[in-house]
Amino acid sequence: MRTFQIEPLDDRLRGAIQDKIDNLNKPKGSLGELEHVAMQLCLIQRTLSPSLAHPCHLLLGGDHGIEREGVSVSPREVTWQQMINFSRGGGGVNMLCRQHGFDLRVVDVGVDYDLSGIRGIINRKVARGTKNFLHEPAMSEKEFDQAIETGAALVDDCAAVGCRILCIGEMGIANTSPSSLWMSLLCDIPLDGCIGAGAGLDRPGLRHKKEVLTLALENFRRLFPNASTEDIIRYFGGFEMVAAIGAMLQAAQRRIVILVDGFIMTACALAACRLCPAARDYMIFGHCGDESGHKRLLDALEARPLLYLGLRLGEGTGALCAFPIVDSAARMINEMNNFEHANITKYF
Amino acid sequence: MRTFQIEPLDDRLRGAIQDKIDNLNKPKGSLGELEHVAMQLCLIQRTLSPSLAHPCHLLLGGDHGIEREGVSVSPREVTWQQMINFSRGGGGVNMLCRQHGFDLRVVDVGVDYDLSGIRGIINRKVARGTKNFLHEPAMSEKEFDQAIETGAALVDDCAAVGCRILCIGEMGIANTSPSSLWMSLLCDIPLDGCIGAGAGLDRPGLRHKKEVLTLALENFRRLFPNASTEDIIRYFGGFEMVAAIGAMLQAAQRRIVILVDGFIMTACALAACRLCPAARDYMIFGHCGDESGHKRLLDALEARPLLYLGLRLGEGTGALCAFPIVDSAARMINEMNNFEHANITKYF
Repeated sequence: MRTFQIEPLDDRLRGAIQDKIDNLNKPKGSLGELEHVAMQLCLIQRTLSPSLAHPCHLLLGGDHGIEREGVSVSPREVTWQQMINFSRGGGGVNMLCRQHGFDLRVVDVGVDYDLSGIRGIINRKVARGTKNFLHEPAMSEKEFDQAIETGAALVDDCAAVGCRILCIGEMGIANTSPSSLWMSLLCDIPLDGCIGAGAGLDRPGLRHKKEVLTLALENFRRLFPNASTEDIIRYFGGFEMVAAIGAMLQAAQRRIVILVDGFIMTACALAACRLCPAARDYMIFGHCGDESGHKRLLDALEARPLLYLGLRLGEGTGALCAFPIVDSAARMINEMNNFEHANITKYF
Repeated sequence: MRTFQIEPLDDRLRGAIQDKIDNLNKPKGSLGELEHVAMQLCLIQRTLSPSLAHPCHLLLGGDHGIEREGVSVSPREVTWQQMINFSRGGGGVNMLCRQHGFDLRVVDVGVDYDLSGIRGIINRKVARGTKNFLHEPAMSEKEFDQAIETGAALVDDCAAVGCRILCIGEMGIANTSPSSLWMSLLCDIPLDGCIGAGAGLDRPGLRHKKEVLTLALENFRRLFPNASTEDIIRYFGGFEMVAAIGAMLQAAQRRIVILVDGFIMTACALAACRLCPAARDYMIFGHCGDESGHKRLLDALEARPLLYLGLRLGEGTGALCAFPIVDSAARMINEMNNFEHANITKYF
């Protein structure tokens, strides 16, 4: 993988930003999380007047070889069917992008279906789905690099139109499975604490998923006794997930705010941070869902999510629902009056 | 107080609404709280296609006699200063109303200052602040009725322009004190569990506040050994708080969705529900703050708030921050495709 040039945030502006926040006409600290988010926005953009211009949402689609093992409640074909639905504006992600003024880009990174003729779907297909990681690595090193570069290039395209905040969502039946394996290996948490019901497995389905993933993990450990972070990501990852990592790293390099979605995107954020720790500084976490393990995953990233709405749809819906909070934070520091201008007796 | 005609929600539509939600192209239940909110919106409006047209925000201002006892960190003058600031667009409530397209109405219900010449402030003053409830009832029966009617009439004005969702915020230095007393008496919770630091009291300040409120409570119990709900509300309440109760009851009567703000507005919601229990059906709770007792107060109303952002500014900022979530819920049921139309294999 190529090197990303990501600078950790420079703390020298912190005092000036805090002063500005503390002089807005409100009791100190009384806007809670909005104040924390405003601080982070200012530090990322090195300014006292942050901008969330041209918000973009990347909806990345890919299929997973492991789906053949029956680890998901939904069949593989739902991936391409939903991609077409998104291209026509009928999905959950569409209504939220319309609501919040996001430039939505639906991208085929590895769907197991020919979507090349479909208007509204950007074709960046690496391959028609990954291989089945129960038996072999999900992708080759070349494919891994291609997926990373695909994500990075998509962010370059967003940056070219002035994007200052990025959400990423995914569509890929069975992609909670690689997410759980990344989490288990990258955080050293036993697999049991990392596996959930995905989009709605029943108890026997969940048991089967655990058996399959446990076996896959044993095979991996035998093949890669000294696995690197990249080995872990490549062996289990989906093309849409690796592209998301590339997108996050490129966004961080470009000082674009990354608003992270639910379990799968948090797993991608974890992987991105293990590859380039400074990327963490550019991430705001939108939503903590009910998927078992998501909270522990957020804890591993020392992340405090903005919302707890019990969403488990994916597509980036949790991040999009959190956008207005981030927007409020920017408006707070940009639009609120300060005590002096408002002629108000300063509160404590 | 006059009678409000509030109908409990009619459950006969519930099945049809749930069918519509379950056939949107997403795994069943996967949009979590958005699905619960959508159900409530549909039941309130008796429709499968709810509308949040013309959102209005009432910012009600009033002063409190109890402020003379030093129970608040901020001096009384901040009430009128902030009212003027709101009228000029520089407050927290202003930026959030602009962000979310709310029609903001700043109303003087009982501020201890002549605001009658100020453009942008609606004059509905009942009196220049309440009396000090450490020694006497905060308001007379006549003033109580006038404040209730003021709130109700403000909602009639909103309804006249097509308002379907209402937020209410307050500005009134010292108004956490009456809120705590209402909560203690209406929920039968010892005062200690109902008192917090307000906008930022230190430890000695908090101790003093507890002493004052304990004494006020003893006096009240002596004067009203068999107090009615109305006695409790009238003895301690602020004009802005009683007007908020009137507004909530009239909104419920008109089937307007009520999006409830933080601690003080939740105390008003509690009081409204004790006067007319059916009003509860029309309320969505926006935010749970850190103010000690707010969570217990929400529990007493069996309310699950949408946001936990640590806000303690008041002004209705917690409700306004939650509005996009309610909007997403309405858009979900109005805009998302269903499985049949999207040609997608139905998920479980």
